[in-house]
Amino acid sequence: MSQALPAAERALFLREALRFADGSRKLIRRALVRGFRVRTKADASFVTDADLGAERLLRREIARRFPAHGIIGEEFPPRNPGAEFQWILDPIDGTLSFTRGIPLFGTLIALQRRGRGVVGVIDHPALDDRCWAAAGLGAFRNGRRLRVAASARPEEELVACGDRMHFHRSGRRAHFDRLLSVHPQVRSYADCFGHSLAARGAVGAMVDYGIKLWDFAPTPVIVEEAGGSFRLIESVETKAHGRLYNLVCGKPRVVEWLIKRLRA
Amino acid sequence: MSQALPAAERALFLREALRFADGSRKLIRRALVRGFRVRTKADASFVTDADLGAERLLRREIARRFPAHGIIGEEFPPRNPGAEFQWILDPIDGTLSFTRGIPLFGTLIALQRRGRGVVGVIDHPALDDRCWAAAGLGAFRNGRRLRVAASARPEEELVACGDRMHFHRSGRRAHFDRLLSVHPQVRSYADCFGHSLAARGAVGAMVDYGIKLWDFAPTPVIVEEAGGSFRLIESVETKAHGRLYNLVCGKPRVVEWLIKRLRA
Repeated sequence: MSQALPAAERALFLREALRFADGSRKLIRRALVRGFRVRTKADASFVTDADLGAERLLRREIARRFPAHGIIGEEFPPRNPGAEFQWILDPIDGTLSFTRGIPLFGTLIALQRRGRGVVGVIDHPALDDRCWAAAGLGAFRNGRRLRVAASARPEEELVACGDRMHFHRSGRRAHFDRLLSVHPQVRSYADCFGHSLAARGAVGAMVDYGIKLWDFAPTPVIVEEAGGSFRLIESVETKAHGRLYNLVCGKPRVVEWLIKRLRA
Repeated sequence: MSQALPAAERALFLREALRFADGSRKLIRRALVRGFRVRTKADASFVTDADLGAERLLRREIARRFPAHGIIGEEFPPRNPGAEFQWILDPIDGTLSFTRGIPLFGTLIALQRRGRGVVGVIDHPALDDRCWAAAGLGAFRNGRRLRVAASARPEEELVACGDRMHFHRSGRRAHFDRLLSVHPQVRSYADCFGHSLAARGAVGAMVDYGIKLWDFAPTPVIVEEAGGSFRLIESVETKAHGRLYNLVCGKPRVVEWLIKRLRA
């Protein structure tokens, strides 16, 4: 078993993660003003100068501050893969939105220790909106404590979901269709925007399928520190996209209500 | 036939509409900071102090500046229903989002002359984002001219749509299902957020069904002045919700592509 990490150390990691997010936000906002180049990757998704620049910046800062830590990021190979502490990065989650000028993309920064979330940050540069948490130290949004309210009636909550094609690529297209048929008010708030809405209780839950590790690494610690629940339904190994994760998170009662019906 | 309205007069109406939007934005942003009360209306939708306050403010300003004009708004009875010029108002389109702290709601202000759009404004107070147009004078977003780009491949565009329950209430649930089955990348960007995304070409098109007149009154003039196309598919009279409108707007080629398949 791992020894508990002192609160002072968790607070220090959080402080540094927020500082890293300040840097990536500045770079991304500059790219929004000055413009950026878009390339299509092998898997047909997009990458921009800003994605690459932001991940490079984050990696450089992390390696300088915590040289023994590992780094897993969307755009570059892993660093120190055997290390106890791993930073997991998605410099721009929602690159499609970013390239179209839709302000709902975000930067995801997580620190895990032996696979467990220590720190999580979801930063939305174009919305001036940031959620974060450290294990045992609470969850916050723009400096205010987050506490997900209890839900009386799951049917009356808004439910967010990811893109249908992501359900499809994890072999669970049927779950997408079932979600739409069992709940009256489902909106596709794709990518990390749906995660931060769930973390702050703006929606009852986020149902996100067929996503990569870095697409949700900060989510569990933020949602749970806010009083919500995070449930990994399954992970599947795919040829085209590697390991994909299917999850539901948000208000505990809504999460349970949805999982029961998705698995029915 | 109506006589053409001089450009100077259209410009004046636009200037005043933008001034009205400044006022409603200020009121709504204040409500976001200070809080507001929520009530459920007879049709089970929400209304807040901010909806009522913003519509009252807009009505007062319009009646003072243009006493002979008519006003149609979501929350109060019509004023001067026979007048040649009619202002059509939705103080907070997306009240559900507004009450949950989801920043995608907006204020809609339109001026029509004998049923034709003269001026349109879609203001997103929480996003600091505003699109507007006057007939013949171009469309703008935050001061920059809007020109919707041509679309090479409709299948590769993002397509926005309204809430499924709105398709349902106009008797066209089948069109929602068809939309999801014919296009790979549909996201529910409900309410006026989807309209302003279409007006600025951030999505290929917005498909919105089962909405009221004030939910889209500014859209035609903004989309068309931006070089896009606006197509009213049909309007239906319903017992529960009165007259509802079903529409598609955005990049001309995407709009035609979608309409052909929705009607198939």
